[in-house]
Amino acid sequence: MAYKYVYLFSEGNGSMRELLGGKGANLAEMTNIGLPVPQGFIISTEACTRYYEDNESIAPEIEAEIFEYLHKIEEINDKKLGDPAKPLLVSVRSGARASMPGMMDTILNLGINDEVAAGLIAGNSDPKFERFVYDSYRRFVQMYSDVVMGLSKKRFETIIDEIKEKKGVKQDIELDTEDLKEMLQLFREFYKKELGEEFPQDPNVQLMGAVKAVFRSWNNERAIFYRKMNEIPSSWGTAVSVMPMVFGNLNNNSGTGVAFTRNPATGEKGLFGEFLMNAQGEDVVAGVRTPSSIDELAQTNPDVYKQFSEIANRLENHYRDMQDMEFTIENGKLYMLQTRNGKRTAAAALRVACDLVDEGMISKEEALLMVDPKQLDALLHPQFDADALKKATVVASALPASPGAACGQVVFSAEEAIEEAAKGNKVILVRLETSPEDIEGMHVSQGILTVRGGMTSHAAVVARGMGTCCVSGCGDINMHDEEGYFEVFGHRVNRGDYISLDGSTGNIYLEAIPTVPASLSGNFGRFMGWADEVRTLGVRTNADTPADAKQAFEYGAEGIGLCRTEHMFFETDRIAAIREFIVSKTTEQRKVALAKLLPMQQGDFEQLYEVMQGKPVTIRFLDPPLHEFVPTNPEDIENLANTMNLPVEEVYQTINNLHEFNPMMGHRGCRLAVSYPELAEMQTTAVIQAAYAVMERTGMDVTPEIMIPLVGEIKELQYVKKVVCDTADAIIEKMGKPLHYKVGSMIEIPRAALTADEIAKEAEFFSFGTNDLTQYTFGFSRDDAGKFLNDYYGKNIYELDPFAHLDQDGVGRLMKTAVALGKQTRPDIKLGICGEHGGDPTSIEFCHSIGLTYVSCSPFRVPIARLAAAQAEIKNPRRVQA
Amino acid sequence: MAYKYVYLFSEGNGSMRELLGGKGANLAEMTNIGLPVPQGFIISTEACTRYYEDNESIAPEIEAEIFEYLHKIEEINDKKLGDPAKPLLVSVRSGARASMPGMMDTILNLGINDEVAAGLIAGNSDPKFERFVYDSYRRFVQMYSDVVMGLSKKRFETIIDEIKEKKGVKQDIELDTEDLKEMLQLFREFYKKELGEEFPQDPNVQLMGAVKAVFRSWNNERAIFYRKMNEIPSSWGTAVSVMPMVFGNLNNNSGTGVAFTRNPATGEKGLFGEFLMNAQGEDVVAGVRTPSSIDELAQTNPDVYKQFSEIANRLENHYRDMQDMEFTIENGKLYMLQTRNGKRTAAAALRVACDLVDEGMISKEEALLMVDPKQLDALLHPQFDADALKKATVVASALPASPGAACGQVVFSAEEAIEEAAKGNKVILVRLETSPEDIEGMHVSQGILTVRGGMTSHAAVVARGMGTCCVSGCGDINMHDEEGYFEVFGHRVNRGDYISLDGSTGNIYLEAIPTVPASLSGNFGRFMGWADEVRTLGVRTNADTPADAKQAFEYGAEGIGLCRTEHMFFETDRIAAIREFIVSKTTEQRKVALAKLLPMQQGDFEQLYEVMQGKPVTIRFLDPPLHEFVPTNPEDIENLANTMNLPVEEVYQTINNLHEFNPMMGHRGCRLAVSYPELAEMQTTAVIQAAYAVMERTGMDVTPEIMIPLVGEIKELQYVKKVVCDTADAIIEKMGKPLHYKVGSMIEIPRAALTADEIAKEAEFFSFGTNDLTQYTFGFSRDDAGKFLNDYYGKNIYELDPFAHLDQDGVGRLMKTAVALGKQTRPDIKLGICGEHGGDPTSIEFCHSIGLTYVSCSPFRVPIARLAAAQAEIKNPRRVQA
Repeated sequence: MAYKYVYLFSEGNGSMRELLGGKGANLAEMTNIGLPVPQGFIISTEACTRYYEDNESIAPEIEAEIFEYLHKIEEINDKKLGDPAKPLLVSVRSGARASMPGMMDTILNLGINDEVAAGLIAGNSDPKFERFVYDSYRRFVQMYSDVVMGLSKKRFETIIDEIKEKKGVKQDIELDTEDLKEMLQLFREFYKKELGEEFPQDPNVQLMGAVKAVFRSWNNERAIFYRKMNEIPSSWGTAVSVMPMVFGNLNNNSGTGVAFTRNPATGEKGLFGEFLMNAQGEDVVAGVRTPSSIDELAQTNPDVYKQFSEIANRLENHYRDMQDMEFTIENGKLYMLQTRNGKRTAAAALRVACDLVDEGMISKEEALLMVDPKQLDALLHPQFDADALKKATVVASALPASPGAACGQVVFSAEEAIEEAAKGNKVILVRLETSPEDIEGMHVSQGILTVRGGMTSHAAVVARGMGTCCVSGCGDINMHDEEGYFEVFGHRVNRGDYISLDGSTGNIYLEAIPTVPASLSGNFGRFMGWADEVRTLGVRTNADTPADAKQAFEYGAEGIGLCRTEHMFFETDRIAAIREFIVSKTTEQRKVALAKLLPMQQGDFEQLYEVMQGKPVTIRFLDPPLHEFVPTNPEDIENLANTMNLPVEEVYQTINNLHEFNPMMGHRGCRLAVSYPELAEMQTTAVIQAAYAVMERTGMDVTPEIMIPLVGEIKELQYVKKVVCDTADAIIEKMGKPLHYKVGSMIEIPRAALTADEIAKEAEFFSFGTNDLTQYTFGFSRDDAGKFLNDYYGKNIYELDPFAHLDQDGVGRLMKTAVALGKQTRPDIKLGICGEHGGDPTSIEFCHSIGLTYVSCSPFRVPIARLAAAQAEIKNPRRVQA
Repeated sequence: MAYKYVYLFSEGNGSMRELLGGKGANLAEMTNIGLPVPQGFIISTEACTRYYEDNESIAPEIEAEIFEYLHKIEEINDKKLGDPAKPLLVSVRSGARASMPGMMDTILNLGINDEVAAGLIAGNSDPKFERFVYDSYRRFVQMYSDVVMGLSKKRFETIIDEIKEKKGVKQDIELDTEDLKEMLQLFREFYKKELGEEFPQDPNVQLMGAVKAVFRSWNNERAIFYRKMNEIPSSWGTAVSVMPMVFGNLNNNSGTGVAFTRNPATGEKGLFGEFLMNAQGEDVVAGVRTPSSIDELAQTNPDVYKQFSEIANRLENHYRDMQDMEFTIENGKLYMLQTRNGKRTAAAALRVACDLVDEGMISKEEALLMVDPKQLDALLHPQFDADALKKATVVASALPASPGAACGQVVFSAEEAIEEAAKGNKVILVRLETSPEDIEGMHVSQGILTVRGGMTSHAAVVARGMGTCCVSGCGDINMHDEEGYFEVFGHRVNRGDYISLDGSTGNIYLEAIPTVPASLSGNFGRFMGWADEVRTLGVRTNADTPADAKQAFEYGAEGIGLCRTEHMFFETDRIAAIREFIVSKTTEQRKVALAKLLPMQQGDFEQLYEVMQGKPVTIRFLDPPLHEFVPTNPEDIENLANTMNLPVEEVYQTINNLHEFNPMMGHRGCRLAVSYPELAEMQTTAVIQAAYAVMERTGMDVTPEIMIPLVGEIKELQYVKKVVCDTADAIIEKMGKPLHYKVGSMIEIPRAALTADEIAKEAEFFSFGTNDLTQYTFGFSRDDAGKFLNDYYGKNIYELDPFAHLDQDGVGRLMKTAVALGKQTRPDIKLGICGEHGGDPTSIEFCHSIGLTYVSCSPFRVPIARLAAAQAEIKNPRRVQA
């Protein structure tokens, strides 16, 4: 038997989503459980893939199979495509594995032509029916011309407008049969003029044209964009369902509607939806007439309502999830046209999940799988007021760098932000890019918008840590910040103007949109508790400040996986000390400078230990290149020279010498500790002394974990570890009380992963720094890749941002190698990840699968990580079953 | 039995070099074949390693073993350390696995003290003997104080000078016994004053002190430096030989000398050396008296001469290599103190190798193993006149970036270099760093000196390609080029001053040293022919210009492994076109600019094909980031704007937009071809049209290989390959004649190595770009690493420059992975390397071992690579033996 590409609804079922698409699989399932569905067939997603493999053509054997199945449904429905006596009209719809609402094309009323139209009219005595037939015919011509043949929609609308003007009416509904006939004629003339041939009368030609158009629409611009936003692979393809038309607009005993089994905004149980009598689906959407609440159907059509609510109930029980259904009533008979798991808000998602467990319909594990971890973001951050958002205009769009909604007045510098915020004004900080010096200004802003930088740029990382909304890398902005304005797509935005940002979508609005604050219901705590019971992967947080750590602790972080010590170096008194360190000429001078930093670092660590209440705290030693700390303006440089009693020229010289061609590949990480071991001594002293201070003050246990960054060679780690241990052990001996501390290594240099068996001889734990590991493995820097990655997405070379989603084929392979080699040397080695990927659900699933001990992510991603970790365990259990 | 750390000479043999050091093993070997060697013992290199493991102390069991062996040699020699009646005096010498002449410490006359001195004098009636004894004694005190106790040599010299002044004499030899007694007294007083204790009279204390001092000297500064220069691992350690003293200065029937079995400068067969009667080894070296030619010994002492020449002959036959020997005659009796394979010039090395084959002493394979490939460099480049070099002073030293010697007048810009060279002046170009725009100036210079940049900086790579001497990365220079001078260690060097550079050592001289030109003898061709017969690894060249290609072809390159197309872009008319390309806004504009480049590129390729006479030519498509091509000075920018009819501001904007934070990880390599496929189209057209033109003109066959740089993902290669093949196949179809071309991939991004099974689906060949692969794998850039790698060398974290010698543990592991994965997909895949490592002998051996097809290196390294490849095959045969 030849390979099968086409399936009757009755041949499929709900589990065949990959082959039949979501819509097709559900139509098949409804057919199988005996619900009233117009009986059609589905052309599989594999046929779509073949279509693209065959250079956008449908192979003869597939075409033959389509017509074989057409004949089967003609028999089932006792109608025939193109037969004027018993004409079959069909809808041709797309349907991918994942729902992509409205992204691809649909064609209705297919099969109509002059003969069929005449036949239909002849077979119906209702005088209004002729108008209905011509309206359907002209709509089909219009749709086919646009979707299949690519003619401009606009010209058709102009024709309609001209006819209405001639007739002096405003609404389509006011046109009579003759008007519609004229319209049809004009449409067909325009078609012939543009394409040099008659509008096809052969329904078979119409059918194949429509199928191809649906396949083609898989790769239209908005579908590609939607897939990119929703991480749907372009290789999946769409299925095509061909279904007999049923008409909700046939008469007053007909109608159409959509309904959910529960309220999609709140999750409350009960039918929730709308319907319109004597209407087609389009009319409900178009908003010309106002639909009625589904409850009213109980009054107007109690039998149909009863049947529909029974079906709704049955479908929810069958699918064990809230359903979103479409139905049509044709002449009093109910038809189900679609069902799917309903989209819902985050709050509703939690309530539905909890309620379904309480109703005994699903297990806790099933409930956990029901909520998309990323959706939790909406509960943790302010959101736009939904109604206000509908009326707002998206002016530009960039990277959704840190979720939440923000509205405020434009400022162009951290200083301005602080000043305006102090006056009680809400501000949005707009910058070319942010630098560590901007932190305080970022903190007081509602949101941050940058022209440069990707998902892991400074602005993005810091904003996520703070939970502040951030949209980054908006290259469409021309900055004139010194003149007090910026331009974007021809709009000029001045300092003080209101703008709004959506950090979850990357949308930018040049208007004030009110926001509603974040709120967590009781369901949240209950649901997250289930996640914690299930998961085997630990969840820690990346936190540098007590505030961040506290937030993360409240969100359930089980420790700090990454404390970036350098983020503490930018406050005024500290930056002075670190600059003094940098311009020092001798080890002695450097030690003097470091001695000034020591009490401050120690104080920071004490606060972090206290907040974390005995949970592990991993402190990464100084990582960035020193030039990030030096002053750039002449005044500061002169001050520094004066403080240090050095000639200004010499300070300039020192700063110039710090210049690097490729700072990402320069003198940073543990390379600094190799050059200046006194730096590691000071940081170790702060870590250990802080631990003793907190243990004494609070009586709680403290286990510091010291993490050495940018290790690439075992001897490098040996050298730095010796400095750390010599320093720590001397303090411990002096204190005379035991203290347990660990020393581990970041794995972020490919060579460290490749020689992890060696590294594990010294490292008591590994933490994968997948931000840098991704950069080195791909050989592109996140700061620069933005310029060309769009070309790569556009050409389908990369589909996902490897800085947001772990590249499992390349970077992941290095990680697996490192895990295997590390365990070979040290079977109980602790394995973590502290790159941005630690907060990304698919990356978390991968980390779970390769056996990591924990992930660490920014505070606001902790709940997401807890849920993603639970889902990973359910899908791929690591826990030994009892 | 306890672990053995000490060996009698008679317990060892010549193959125990690792354990006994070179000197020790050869002493053992000479003992075993019955030559007259004073019988001593050797403390093994393992004892040295233990010494460092035990925190620089000698374990009691080793000390005990040393004294056990001391007693054994006391019995053999019938003398006893410290016994006034039959005193044994010994020398204590270092001796590592590899020869490190003069780098470590030696102590002579050990065992002398007041009693022994008195005993010696009492046992000898010669009145001059007393002076000899006191001279030996004071020399021992001097040497011991310096070497073992670390007292300043200078103070001892001052004491000697004061005594000579008092006495009114100039030479040590004019001092009598009483003077020497006084000197000894003053030495011992100084010793006591400085160290608070008497000079040790106990010979056992002296012995242990001396052994420790030798161990310690393994890590003195000059030894570390020497090891770094000669790639000797610091883990090897040194052995210590303890040997009874024999005295060439006992009387006129005594003497000492050194001799080679062949002339070390020319390789001519025959004893070649010097001797002095009534002298110790030191005297020969010190140059106070002029030694006589070894031939004269035949006259003055025919018996000893005969005995010595027989021994020399026997040793050469025994070791089957030219020997370098030390001997002493004590009272008419000949003692052999050392033999080793003699160091020789490159010319001598080739002659000796060829002669030994002709003499039937060794096989061709043994001859090939006898010559260090790196030594061939000296035959291919000018060298300093040896005599003049001896008198010259090294003022500074930096990286030996491109071998050869150069002497000329300082210039500070490429323009000056061209101008001065046109006048017939020889110039040295001194630059902070070079850029592609400097190429012409570099070409006319005798040598190049840069302040910044490593072994693979632009200056280094280009200079090696040209065969021009280059010393790079001399950070000790303070440039004041705009004021027309530079400073180095307090010396001011003005424009026009003469300096000399040694590109083989990195030495810099602030004086003119005459050079002698390169010259190749007939032995060279014969010897290299043997190498070609043996090797299984191909050798290609990296060449961008016909001149380079011609040079490489003459040196035996079997094809071009890397032609960097961008190196052709810097000539005036071309740079204009590429700049036009860069500032273009549309594909059409870019195509116009590229059309101007096409005929020039095609012309270049035609010349390369012709020079290579049908051998394969691999052309790498455009690699560097575009900002390397844009003008930097305002005038050029304005000109460009005018040419392009664009506002100047817009051109500035374009140039600013090209700025990258980390250009090494930016928009370059095939990323350019993804963004601008028209670039790949143009380059493909040039490659293919050039092939047809040359085939037509010359009738020879041309097989172009197109190489796509910086590939990290299969889809990226697929995209670019499709552009290449579509373009090429269209031309081939138009031409109507077959043309075979290949498309391959650089493997220089870690991700490409990790996914090489995928990459090989498209790539017909791989070429490892180990420069970049090393950068990404280590996560440091070669341009920036110079700043901290010295700290790493100093702390023994890295011992070798990974950009000069392939890192087999990390980068090598990625290469092995890529080779295995690549062959899995495409068993006959061609595998090459075109990084700088392709010309480094140890890296070549590694490439051979992992199964590469060929290495590609700069033209002047081709002979080195041919020899290294032959040696690799001999050591580790890949050829299936018949």
